[in-house]
Amino acid sequence: MNVIEFEPIGRRGECPEGESLLDSARRLDVDIVRLCNGVGACGRCKVQIVSGEVSPISAKEKEVLTTKEIERNFRLACLTRPLGSTKVHVPPESLTAPQRTQVEGLEIDIVPEPSFQSVCLELEPPTIEKQAADETNFLVALNRSDADAIGFDLEALRGMPALLRAENWRARAAIRNNEVIAIESASTRWCGLAVDIGTTKIAVYLVDMESGKTLASKGLMNPQISYGEDVVSRIYAASRSAEDAEKLQTLIVEALNEAIVSLCAETGVDCRSVADAVIVGNTAIHHLFLKLPVSQLGLAPYVPALRSAIDVKARDLGLETAGGAYVHLLPNIAGYVGADHVAMILGTRLAESSGVTLAIDIGTNTEICLNNRGEMASVSCASGPAFEGAHIKHGMRAAPGAIEHVRISGDQLTIQTIGGEAPAGICGSGLLDVAAQMRLNDVMDSTGKILPHPRVRIREDGMKEFVLAERPGKEDITISQKDIRELQLAKAAIRLGIRALVEEMGITETEIDEVIIAGAFGTFIDVESAITIGMLPPLPRERFRQVGNAAGTGARLALVSMTERRKAAAMVSRVRYVELATIREFNYKFAEASAMTEL
Amino acid sequence: MNVIEFEPIGRRGECPEGESLLDSARRLDVDIVRLCNGVGACGRCKVQIVSGEVSPISAKEKEVLTTKEIERNFRLACLTRPLGSTKVHVPPESLTAPQRTQVEGLEIDIVPEPSFQSVCLELEPPTIEKQAADETNFLVALNRSDADAIGFDLEALRGMPALLRAENWRARAAIRNNEVIAIESASTRWCGLAVDIGTTKIAVYLVDMESGKTLASKGLMNPQISYGEDVVSRIYAASRSAEDAEKLQTLIVEALNEAIVSLCAETGVDCRSVADAVIVGNTAIHHLFLKLPVSQLGLAPYVPALRSAIDVKARDLGLETAGGAYVHLLPNIAGYVGADHVAMILGTRLAESSGVTLAIDIGTNTEICLNNRGEMASVSCASGPAFEGAHIKHGMRAAPGAIEHVRISGDQLTIQTIGGEAPAGICGSGLLDVAAQMRLNDVMDSTGKILPHPRVRIREDGMKEFVLAERPGKEDITISQKDIRELQLAKAAIRLGIRALVEEMGITETEIDEVIIAGAFGTFIDVESAITIGMLPPLPRERFRQVGNAAGTGARLALVSMTERRKAAAMVSRVRYVELATIREFNYKFAEASAMTEL
Repeated sequence: MNVIEFEPIGRRGECPEGESLLDSARRLDVDIVRLCNGVGACGRCKVQIVSGEVSPISAKEKEVLTTKEIERNFRLACLTRPLGSTKVHVPPESLTAPQRTQVEGLEIDIVPEPSFQSVCLELEPPTIEKQAADETNFLVALNRSDADAIGFDLEALRGMPALLRAENWRARAAIRNNEVIAIESASTRWCGLAVDIGTTKIAVYLVDMESGKTLASKGLMNPQISYGEDVVSRIYAASRSAEDAEKLQTLIVEALNEAIVSLCAETGVDCRSVADAVIVGNTAIHHLFLKLPVSQLGLAPYVPALRSAIDVKARDLGLETAGGAYVHLLPNIAGYVGADHVAMILGTRLAESSGVTLAIDIGTNTEICLNNRGEMASVSCASGPAFEGAHIKHGMRAAPGAIEHVRISGDQLTIQTIGGEAPAGICGSGLLDVAAQMRLNDVMDSTGKILPHPRVRIREDGMKEFVLAERPGKEDITISQKDIRELQLAKAAIRLGIRALVEEMGITETEIDEVIIAGAFGTFIDVESAITIGMLPPLPRERFRQVGNAAGTGARLALVSMTERRKAAAMVSRVRYVELATIREFNYKFAEASAMTEL
Repeated sequence: MNVIEFEPIGRRGECPEGESLLDSARRLDVDIVRLCNGVGACGRCKVQIVSGEVSPISAKEKEVLTTKEIERNFRLACLTRPLGSTKVHVPPESLTAPQRTQVEGLEIDIVPEPSFQSVCLELEPPTIEKQAADETNFLVALNRSDADAIGFDLEALRGMPALLRAENWRARAAIRNNEVIAIESASTRWCGLAVDIGTTKIAVYLVDMESGKTLASKGLMNPQISYGEDVVSRIYAASRSAEDAEKLQTLIVEALNEAIVSLCAETGVDCRSVADAVIVGNTAIHHLFLKLPVSQLGLAPYVPALRSAIDVKARDLGLETAGGAYVHLLPNIAGYVGADHVAMILGTRLAESSGVTLAIDIGTNTEICLNNRGEMASVSCASGPAFEGAHIKHGMRAAPGAIEHVRISGDQLTIQTIGGEAPAGICGSGLLDVAAQMRLNDVMDSTGKILPHPRVRIREDGMKEFVLAERPGKEDITISQKDIRELQLAKAAIRLGIRALVEEMGITETEIDEVIIAGAFGTFIDVESAITIGMLPPLPRERFRQVGNAAGTGARLALVSMTERRKAAAMVSRVRYVELATIREFNYKFAEASAMTEL
């Protein structure tokens, strides 16, 4: 028996010798993608060997993996057998959807440099002869340390007298910009909260502020969805009614408070030791969270109320943290390029790149940033909700039963659903796959028109559709001509965005050294498929990097380091905003970007 | 007919020629004290002639008035007849109680130097080509002015987008320490709020921050009285129950919010233009208002939670002012020498005095400060509620029907009640008067023992009492031996406080150049009476000055001037706190101070 450990999901157990990593993963309930069912054909079960000896690399793996991947110890789990106890890292894109949460992203090691100082103090108890006020007494003790403070947060002050007496006049304080923001027992370890509020999902991270390490994380649905799946409907709701604006804010706050309680319980941390927070989201989400007016975001010229970063007392927003803690919101670049984009730039280290790097965060709204040898520009494209399953007849979110991968070979169709369950619909990555496979197998031409094929049929209304799954007694799961058109609009918007940036910089797409794909959806797409239908430029596969929730990573970086916050603040003037609506020959260029073929 | 105008009460009207000012006052409903009924004997109807010719000064007036008073145009209203239209200033001590409110105090002219800058801005409307965020746009406009700001209060920011669009991109901003705290229409005139929260009464002043002038003021009862008349019972209530602590805070805030609304309505000011506030009160009141814990104030060594001045967002306390406005609370000196004492020092200009000046704020708790040629010390004495009418059998507050002045001449007794109504009880100044008159007429000896007199009778329980008013069908109003003992404790505490300070400084009482008596009660006492029973040292009458609500004046000074706030902050380390309980031979000295005679 070998002990096999799967990271970062944290599963570990004994597995028989000779078993493939893919089978060991299944044994330990780690759901690695197995589209070709373990024959090394699909190349989707990539894992990275962290430690331990494994079987030598096979010829098939050498075909599928890039040289760079092989150098970094990447292998296909289905073709690799441990030769002893082994530690394996499973990248998020190799996990099936239910285990890929929106919280996963790179962990970047930086030296913590928090917004506050942590000081341990010992006070002299007052006597009738020496009646020092608690506050004076505290400042005197503080003066003996290397910290400085001139004022107290009122909440921190309210708790101090009881704490000092209970803790025998010893305490630990968090001091931020000369303000005492929290006072707790001397043994307290301050934590922080990093939050990425997406239109659909929220990622929450509890971070140790001393080490900078993430202690626990949690993904949850954005409850604002009850006001509409896209931000525009939420903007309208908040603009029409002050009550709804209030509700849109409290919905998020309540969800965050629940997450704080649960993360703290999981890690044995007291909520009152959460002494800082960084929250990111797109501009509309950012405004709704701060209860800033949003009506001007929905009307030309679409300006934010607030662009700069802002620090707000957490309690002013209703968040349950240390009494005097602040929440830092990263800056917005424009009405549709928000703080989450700034966080993504931080989390991908895009600004530090010296070559030509493109970073894409695909969603209902796709934001793209190009760093051309130090010169940066961003664009926002309304890619629509097709990737989230909306506006697609059988579309659905990446949930169990969703078709997430598709392969067509002649008449043969192979589908993989999330969780291996009976197909229930098709999710974003499945949609991309099916379109690409239809194109490669001539079931669709380059204009996006569906061509005759044994699986193509004509509906009663005359529209063609491609049958993905026949379900006796239930409606078949199909992709119709209309669904293809929806996808076409989405992918054209993204490609046009990329092209607008490249043109803005006066370079060509082929000059791009690296394409970073961020965000939950982007992490799980098949890049080849995206290239096949012309959504992404046809660059060598090794130039693409899928990094998971980079905005979450960026939020964590900004949480633990003031240098990162300064970088983010500088981004606002450093990143040029390109307004897609004002580019020349928009319609012509959009049509050009719509072609369903490598572009 | 002459036009006679009475200040500051603001009454004006035609009066027949030859009529005394006292009669004209009655005609115009200005209630000036008339203890001797207008024969120039009691000297209580002093007024100051501001402008206009009046009858020459009489011999009687020359007897009653000091040289200094005569120089400053003081006259007795009963003996002065206008020779034409005249403007008269009525000092508060010459008014009967219902017209003396706790808001009256000196107006000190200083150059306004507010905590914030007021800037008028004109912004450039954004376009699709120039999509400036409102905040960025605002900061750009601000940059063109001479003001600096780096951040926005969230509330101020929330209102900005709508305001800018409604006001055609023009606005006025209040900027405090680089923070934009309020944004209103360009025509806004910023106001401020000065509040003195007494144990019993609250004085609220609405001040124009540009001119520093008081626009309107209002006196109200402190609703915390439902938790007890003295602060100790409120401290216990708040210590026992978090709910009561909450309630004690909201009671005050609700009362203040009502006062704000009413003062704003009276002056046509919008509550949102109230951009600053200064609030003072004793240490317990200060803590209750901030919802700081108070239990440690009630237990030795009686230390405050907070001594330094603090600035708190008004909304954090529930006050309805401009969204981002702060409330400044002056510092406390000790557990029983609070921010109201600091304000009194400001309002009396005590710290600026170069000689030896004593300032006394008489109340349930009496705080005294001595400035000995620049060296300052304060003491707090538990003088008890006798002056407020409590613990005195027929005691009552200074309300209509209260006996406020008494004269005994042989068997003859003259009393004056507030409002001239049938006697209902005796208030603090009446109590002082009756004791002094009893002493002067040998109805009481120097130990405070009541002696035989036609008006002295022995009760069934053997206790002696002096009859002040016989009321057919009702209990007579009397002063008993026990009442005298209560008064004796109160006055001994005050005198001991004065002596402790004088001793602390190594000087004698005769060296005191000036005694300033502050506070509503102190303003209306007969200083002669207080000297007669040994409450105040027997200094020449002209060394005494009764100034009304000096704490309110101090709060107003601190509201409009940062220099005054700095002075107040310096006071905390400049004023030495003398703990009465720790002075040597306390009991002996207390007994000595109890003697009911000039001391």
